[in-house]
Amino acid sequence: MFDRRIAEVAATVSGRLDLALRDMPGEVGEAMRHATSGGKRLRAFLVCEGAALHGVAPGPALDAAAAIEAMHAYSLVHDDLPAMDDDDLRRGQPTVHVKWNEATAILVGDALQSLAFDLLSHAALPADRVVTLTAGMARAAGGMGMVHGQALDIAAETAPEPLSLPQITELQARKTGALIEWSAQAGPIMADADPGPMGAYARALGLAFQIADDILDVEGDEAETGKRLRKDTAAGKATFVSLMGLDGAKAEAGRLVETACEALSVYGERADGLREAARFVISRQS
Amino acid sequence: MFDRRIAEVAATVSGRLDLALRDMPGEVGEAMRHATSGGKRLRAFLVCEGAALHGVAPGPALDAAAAIEAMHAYSLVHDDLPAMDDDDLRRGQPTVHVKWNEATAILVGDALQSLAFDLLSHAALPADRVVTLTAGMARAAGGMGMVHGQALDIAAETAPEPLSLPQITELQARKTGALIEWSAQAGPIMADADPGPMGAYARALGLAFQIADDILDVEGDEAETGKRLRKDTAAGKATFVSLMGLDGAKAEAGRLVETACEALSVYGERADGLREAARFVISRQS
Repeated sequence: MFDRRIAEVAATVSGRLDLALRDMPGEVGEAMRHATSGGKRLRAFLVCEGAALHGVAPGPALDAAAAIEAMHAYSLVHDDLPAMDDDDLRRGQPTVHVKWNEATAILVGDALQSLAFDLLSHAALPADRVVTLTAGMARAAGGMGMVHGQALDIAAETAPEPLSLPQITELQARKTGALIEWSAQAGPIMADADPGPMGAYARALGLAFQIADDILDVEGDEAETGKRLRKDTAAGKATFVSLMGLDGAKAEAGRLVETACEALSVYGERADGLREAARFVISRQS
Repeated sequence: MFDRRIAEVAATVSGRLDLALRDMPGEVGEAMRHATSGGKRLRAFLVCEGAALHGVAPGPALDAAAAIEAMHAYSLVHDDLPAMDDDDLRRGQPTVHVKWNEATAILVGDALQSLAFDLLSHAALPADRVVTLTAGMARAAGGMGMVHGQALDIAAETAPEPLSLPQITELQARKTGALIEWSAQAGPIMADADPGPMGAYARALGLAFQIADDILDVEGDEAETGKRLRKDTAAGKATFVSLMGLDGAKAEAGRLVETACEALSVYGERADGLREAARFVISRQS
């Protein structure tokens, strides 16, 4: 059920991104199409499922879903740059600066961020909801949100001591948590409903997602994940696994999934798709 | 009159940016404050003057002006990166990647773009106007606008032949013209008035601005402009000066200023500030 639903969302959101990027000119356009292809589309799923749960029409939900996937894709392209995480493999494909060059990768990320706001601003919703979503996305992505998390992550590499658990939790809440929270809250915001339960769900889910990422970095397979692994361990960076141990991290991820599922109690069994998504997040192999 | 007015706008918009960035954390926050300080604030002036001309309140005009200056500042930080134009001096100060490092400069640009949409989304305007402004800014900045212009500019460096005049004109219309056009049209859009005359004004102004830039690159003083000069000539790149000659370029810039001023005829003498701005653009020494 969940597998089919996320595959449907992935296909639909990929189609929406392809349409938006069809006439994007030059190498940058080509590389934007490359950078937005593939991926689990978890953020898009959260937008679409949260929207359906609140009776939002599929059209505007799809625009918001494509917007957040464009934003996420920009962050990956820039994070992969040599001056940042210096990665050559992403979603099983060469990264943009490897396949093209650094200048192209910088421009692709920049244009994908613009595209995210472009897509959102064209969602067929009452204008006040579009403005609320735009303000939230700008805040989640910016210097107090995702960018701050990435800056903390880079600073951690040269810090005299490994980060503590509260520091890692704070870092990840910004680096990956902020966009996940925006995605989950987009549905209720589009419907002018209370975004509280979806926010609580997303905060637990986002942290579980990152713990699972750290576990995959240790136990995962590069061919299956489509990205380089074992980099954190090699760099001596603190992760949830290095701080809690493998078993401790798995147990904590399981508890967070329970917390996430319970946050949805107000929706009853209609939120079972989101509960399945939470369980998927810690069982995934990629 | 114009000197005093643009200085007032510059001081007010700098204050608005300082306020927005006051609590921005870490080195990235510090470098964002560095990157947004100084500059002529021509785009902010166009927003504020166009807004005043259409009876828009100063508050929302200031938010839109700060937004476009944040967007412009992001573009400068990324353009200055080693993989792009590789500049070490900007607005008389070391560029962000020189004063900090490349990773910080990438993140600063990314966060400034988010900030632009953040500021715009909080302008006290009817929501539909905010959405129109947001859509226009995203389009002007993205892969069909400013980013495409920058990509064309980089491609020109390694092209087998120098660009032709129509190609340079097209490149500059995107690279610098798109944000200038957005700035000039923001006022009428905020007032739900016809943005046509301001658009025509801005297209002529933007081109005159770029021709003046090419003239400054040949005749200017690095201490006065606060940036490196003579790079285009050294790289053998086609510019308006190389294609039209110095006298030809000056004459064309003068004609464009006349075109820009005439586009404002519908406003009568109330638009004299904007006419002075057009004359300033080709007489400036920085």
